[in-house]
Amino acid sequence: MNYQTLLVEQKGIALYVTLNRPECRNAMSLQMVEELQQVFSQLEQSKDIRALVLRGVQNNFCAGGDIKDMAGARAQAANSDPDQPNAFYSLNRVFGKMITQANRLPQVVICLLQGAVLGGGFGLACVSDVAIADQSAQFGLPETSLGVIPAQIAPFVVQRIGLTQARRLALLGERFNGEEAVRLGIAHYHCHGEEEVNKRLDSVLKQVSLCAPKANATTKSLLLQVGEQEMEQLLDQAATDFAQAVQSKEGAEGTMAFVQKRPAKWVLD
Amino acid sequence: MNYQTLLVEQKGIALYVTLNRPECRNAMSLQMVEELQQVFSQLEQSKDIRALVLRGVQNNFCAGGDIKDMAGARAQAANSDPDQPNAFYSLNRVFGKMITQANRLPQVVICLLQGAVLGGGFGLACVSDVAIADQSAQFGLPETSLGVIPAQIAPFVVQRIGLTQARRLALLGERFNGEEAVRLGIAHYHCHGEEEVNKRLDSVLKQVSLCAPKANATTKSLLLQVGEQEMEQLLDQAATDFAQAVQSKEGAEGTMAFVQKRPAKWVLD
Amino acid sequence: MNYQTLLVEQKGIALYVTLNRPECRNAMSLQMVEELQQVFSQLEQSKDIRALVLRGVQNNFCAGGDIKDMAGARAQAANSDPDQPNAFYSLNRVFGKMITQANRLPQVVICLLQGAVLGGGFGLACVSDVAIADQSAQFGLPETSLGVIPAQIAPFVVQRIGLTQARRLALLGERFNGEEAVRLGIAHYHCHGEEEVNKRLDSVLKQVSLCAPKANATTKSLLLQVGEQEMEQLLDQAATDFAQAVQSKEGAEGTMAFVQKRPAKWVLD
Repeated sequence: MNYQTLLVEQKGIALYVTLNRPECRNAMSLQMVEELQQVFSQLEQSKDIRALVLRGVQNNFCAGGDIKDMAGARAQAANSDPDQPNAFYSLNRVFGKMITQANRLPQVVICLLQGAVLGGGFGLACVSDVAIADQSAQFGLPETSLGVIPAQIAPFVVQRIGLTQARRLALLGERFNGEEAVRLGIAHYHCHGEEEVNKRLDSVLKQVSLCAPKANATTKSLLLQVGEQEMEQLLDQAATDFAQAVQSKEGAEGTMAFVQKRPAKWVLD
Repeated sequence: MNYQTLLVEQKGIALYVTLNRPECRNAMSLQMVEELQQVFSQLEQSKDIRALVLRGVQNNFCAGGDIKDMAGARAQAANSDPDQPNAFYSLNRVFGKMITQANRLPQVVICLLQGAVLGGGFGLACVSDVAIADQSAQFGLPETSLGVIPAQIAPFVVQRIGLTQARRLALLGERFNGEEAVRLGIAHYHCHGEEEVNKRLDSVLKQVSLCAPKANATTKSLLLQVGEQEMEQLLDQAATDFAQAVQSKEGAEGTMAFVQKRPAKWVLD
Repeated sequence: MNYQTLLVEQKGIALYVTLNRPECRNAMSLQMVEELQQVFSQLEQSKDIRALVLRGVQNNFCAGGDIKDMAGARAQAANSDPDQPNAFYSLNRVFGKMITQANRLPQVVICLLQGAVLGGGFGLACVSDVAIADQSAQFGLPETSLGVIPAQIAPFVVQRIGLTQARRLALLGERFNGEEAVRLGIAHYHCHGEEEVNKRLDSVLKQVSLCAPKANATTKSLLLQVGEQEMEQLLDQAATDFAQAVQSKEGAEGTMAFVQKRPAKWVLD
């Protein structure tokens, strides 16, 4: 695949996806949203990739929505057929669908948060399994200070850090740094510069490599269902998943490795 | 309007409501509950007030429920018609309705927490968008140590800080200070004395003034629906809200101000 | 009752239950699960026990599931009638049922977390009302690194500390200490050694003794229903509970003690 807005590279167990629109601090254009969706759809089918590393070029993660797309939608909305979905509605909703897809990926999703982590970039960070914030990171929800709303972002912020902090951040449009992001629970680790970010990434990827890929994917799917499904039903289903996992190749290899006191070798089938 | 238990004053974009029962550290009487409900109903219709500042006289926020009302309800309950709702039931439930109304106000609700923040005062603090705790603040849920239960309060504490800390606080009746309140996520800011509280309030109100009023109200309503409505439906609705916001006067002014690199002027219509 | 895997002793208002399988760091065998369920069923009927203290012998809380039981289930599963529930399913599900029962006990549940707090031990800690972590504690979810899944544990971890940290812990299989457990909200207090743990326990039990037993049980039941029941309905029910509490013997004694400025005496009936 050839992408206009992304750099994509596989190394070891991880796919590295780098947002690549340096002219606008990697603002999230419609094209970028669609290309991310293509990458995610391939990851859903992948049997050998176990982690996704998301970052941006030139030490910025993502500065939010793209202004040119907004102008385009404005032109479209002005001439639009009233029976068709509004152009702003579509532009906004597709971004949320991309975030939802990122949230549910079977891989471990790791975000490297440097520089601008604003609006949509903030939203994307909120569905990572592991978020590493650099001291250069600047987080914020500036939407209402621009007369609009963080429509496809705010609900994910509530799921990430709870209503109490989300309501303050969204209604004051406050900016804050990576240390505060860790304190609020948006990010998991705070680092001082790129070298430390890369060291932490290495250590996270090493942890991921120790965990059985299918067991991790099943566990992630289970975690995401808490609060969406009734608890007793969820625990019933989880026990079925457990019985399958323990009788799978991974379960056999894990038990064997434990008994033999050696690292497990996760073979993909 | 003339209030017996409240001082009410409008300054700039904010309405200042001060609980005013100094003889009992602003304990929440039935009359105070009803007067707060009147203020809130007016705020729901207001077009020019964008923030509510809630505080108490004489450096106490609110010491909880009122003992005289309880005695009155006891007398009423003793003589009551068994077909009528119990007097204790009504006294308790109306307090919870007031809290729910405060939670859903379209304005940004800011609580200044000094001195006693107990029982019902604690409950009210738990639905603020921004809570500023002074070093003088004393928080606590003493209900079960008095043989009763924090019925209309505990559910809001769980929504505020989660079950894990709420169960400890409610079942031990523990007291704690403003620093701990920030650590637990009940309050957002900790201040050392009144001067610092006022400085923080000024800075919060300045942030509020930068944000578009309708966009803030729509965002707040959206945040409050997370967990109450199914996520995909909520995101659909949010996209509709986004399309309306961006095509509104606020959306036009926000975009124009951004392009012209000037602060936006939020005109109310 | 005579238990094979537990030491059980009543002292004052509390029942002390000590996991007692020192040969395997108190790993959770099926027998231990069933014995805990027996203890819990008796506690549900108890009128004089107001707190449950859960801990493990030899400075370990619980190292997770029992390997011998797993081997037994494997043998059973191999020869099993396909119309019968899978042996792994049953072994796993019964553990979750024990955790659910622990979560809903009317008493205040206090866990003393020393040494190994892994897998199932971690899950049990996640439903305590008060968790005291010693500096010796080692927490972790090693399941996916063994090729299996934390099926009956992960959902309780999400309820304890939210999705954001739970997904990281479960998908990296990370180990962490008691200080980090307090930071993440798994435990409430961090202590330096057994003496400090015991002091903290004394102070917690003293707080419990000040709170009315039935009021505490009703409050706990209310807290656990937040998010499971619609909020307005829950607050209606809570007001009914309040009216009952205030008119009960506890409510009368609590009010009287408050007026007479003396400690309340909670008499059980």
